[in-house]
Amino acid sequence: MQETETRGGWLSREELRDARDRLPILYVNVVPVRVDERSQVTKVGLLLRADADGRIARELVSGRVLYHERVRDAVLRHVERDLGPMALPQVPLSPQPFAIAEYFPTPGVTPFHDPRQHAVALGYIVVLMGDCAPTGDSLDLAWLTPGEAADLAATSEMSGGHGVVLRQALSHLGIPV
Amino acid sequence: MQETETRGGWLSREELRDARDRLPILYVNVVPVRVDERSQVTKVGLLLRADADGRIARELVSGRVLYHERVRDAVLRHVERDLGPMALPQVPLSPQPFAIAEYFPTPGVTPFHDPRQHAVALGYIVVLMGDCAPTGDSLDLAWLTPGEAADLAATSEMSGGHGVVLRQALSHLGIPV
Amino acid sequence: MQETETRGGWLSREELRDARDRLPILYVNVVPVRVDERSQVTKVGLLLRADADGRIARELVSGRVLYHERVRDAVLRHVERDLGPMALPQVPLSPQPFAIAEYFPTPGVTPFHDPRQHAVALGYIVVLMGDCAPTGDSLDLAWLTPGEAADLAATSEMSGGHGVVLRQALSHLGIPV
Amino acid sequence: MQETETRGGWLSREELRDARDRLPILYVNVVPVRVDERSQVTKVGLLLRADADGRIARELVSGRVLYHERVRDAVLRHVERDLGPMALPQVPLSPQPFAIAEYFPTPGVTPFHDPRQHAVALGYIVVLMGDCAPTGDSLDLAWLTPGEAADLAATSEMSGGHGVVLRQALSHLGIPV
Repeated sequence: MQETETRGGWLSREELRDARDRLPILYVNVVPVRVDERSQVTKVGLLLRADADGRIARELVSGRVLYHERVRDAVLRHVERDLGPMALPQVPLSPQPFAIAEYFPTPGVTPFHDPRQHAVALGYIVVLMGDCAPTGDSLDLAWLTPGEAADLAATSEMSGGHGVVLRQALSHLGIPV
Repeated sequence: MQETETRGGWLSREELRDARDRLPILYVNVVPVRVDERSQVTKVGLLLRADADGRIARELVSGRVLYHERVRDAVLRHVERDLGPMALPQVPLSPQPFAIAEYFPTPGVTPFHDPRQHAVALGYIVVLMGDCAPTGDSLDLAWLTPGEAADLAATSEMSGGHGVVLRQALSHLGIPV
Repeated sequence: MQETETRGGWLSREELRDARDRLPILYVNVVPVRVDERSQVTKVGLLLRADADGRIARELVSGRVLYHERVRDAVLRHVERDLGPMALPQVPLSPQPFAIAEYFPTPGVTPFHDPRQHAVALGYIVVLMGDCAPTGDSLDLAWLTPGEAADLAATSEMSGGHGVVLRQALSHLGIPV
Repeated sequence: MQETETRGGWLSREELRDARDRLPILYVNVVPVRVDERSQVTKVGLLLRADADGRIARELVSGRVLYHERVRDAVLRHVERDLGPMALPQVPLSPQPFAIAEYFPTPGVTPFHDPRQHAVALGYIVVLMGDCAPTGDSLDLAWLTPGEAADLAATSEMSGGHGVVLRQALSHLGIPV
């Protein structure tokens, strides 16, 4: 998970680091999709990023929920941060997440791992109606078919648990994984 | 629940009446809504109908799933039948219903009652993006605020269980009922 | 899907065959599980059956909902039919299924296929607290770890869509598939 | 929401107060229930508490998720804290909450209000199989029928949003509210 909003957020870098040693941090995990006129998912969007070691990774849109921010506003903010202001995201009607992912700093406690912190992420599937232009740390946004996304999600290109969340999303949509 | 599709369906009236005495019939219950740009529900659409006794009733869009018809296609067909071809419905991405309603011919078995049959209805919340023009047996489509809809759902204007389904939908959306 | 209840059911064999050519038939798909004291799934139960060609297949517990039968009673009845009267099943609290599966007589319309009929199955995960003794057409009940079940579900031993339903269930439980 | 775990938790009182001014705090909201042999809810358990002004309030079991604690363990810990070690709680199989509740320090932003903090609570329905003995700050645990609970949830005895969560839980269970 990337973390660019801290600069403009409510905590200094040091304070956030401190809180991360003490509290579970609330996140959102967003699976961007395109749909046809019958609302069947035709494409899944994945961010392409270079990690610290220069390896290429595929990621979901994700990030923190800020103090005094609604969860649906956090979803919209992170989509805009990663995909630009013209993506026209449709947040789910219900705040119930399709799944939660518990990222632990210790590997192996759950299928989800984040070395920086204990984060609990609420998962949402978000339809994008507009044009996506990857911004910030993202090199690119790739649109895959649901089948391609299911396959990629099982590889090491999606590590730390994003692949598991993606396959949960596809499964929730009725797509075989 | 209205039943106009039988004329063009796969069973004759007599055959359908016969099946209804023997098998649970699969239905969809659709809650039509309008949303704002953050996908918060701003309006709920209810059909106005005159029943056999001339009493006015408020109803959800609902109807049978036909043989060899996908559930999402049944939702689209019933919305078009009741609200016209320009309603531009957005079916939910996932086929998982927010609730199921078990309509029994015997009152009191469940909160749901249908004197004609044993029907099991899958509930879906459907965003309408276009213009709605009530057709068929509907006198009108009324757009209510979520609060007004929650209140109306508790009155005798919504009988047989449609009010219960509506309140389940609102509750699922995070709206107090 | 096996169909033993028709003999004692509300339709004669001929009548049921007739209805199956005309209407979607309502089913339940049940994933039997064992859990630990923290309600984490430790085992998944799969039926072993010999199909008409003598091939061995793994199956979920599944079957029809009868006329005037509650869905939760159908779940209990099919578990007892396949696993005996001492299985002590715990039906989910909520009637909302974790997924629906649309079995079409035509292969390829959905990931689910049933040559005999168009069936729509509501999926439920059911904890078994007691002793299971396979009855009827089942040769055996095998208890697998969630990981083994996920792997088996992707093989041809679970065909027609039961493997897809099983993987949806595991995914819903937060188990990587 | 009561907060007794801070004494033995990972933050001092001062540090927690500080974090609460900066970050959304992750909570669980638990609706305790009794069920019959068909898993139909027969009773709902509500805590009786005296608030700072000496007024009697009805509350759900709820509390924080601690650093490096699984959500299901937080549910078990809070049930044991409030209802004693013999309550024999059955946590839901799936970590997906039936709803999330966003408690804001500012009234009116959402239906949920907590003057102390911005908390996001994951809602779970938990079956209690054993004997409950209210402990800590609770005066009593009252078992109500689902209908009584639905009525009480709409009164000022359940303020701040617990009544809304309770009615969402009942609605999710298929009980009319």
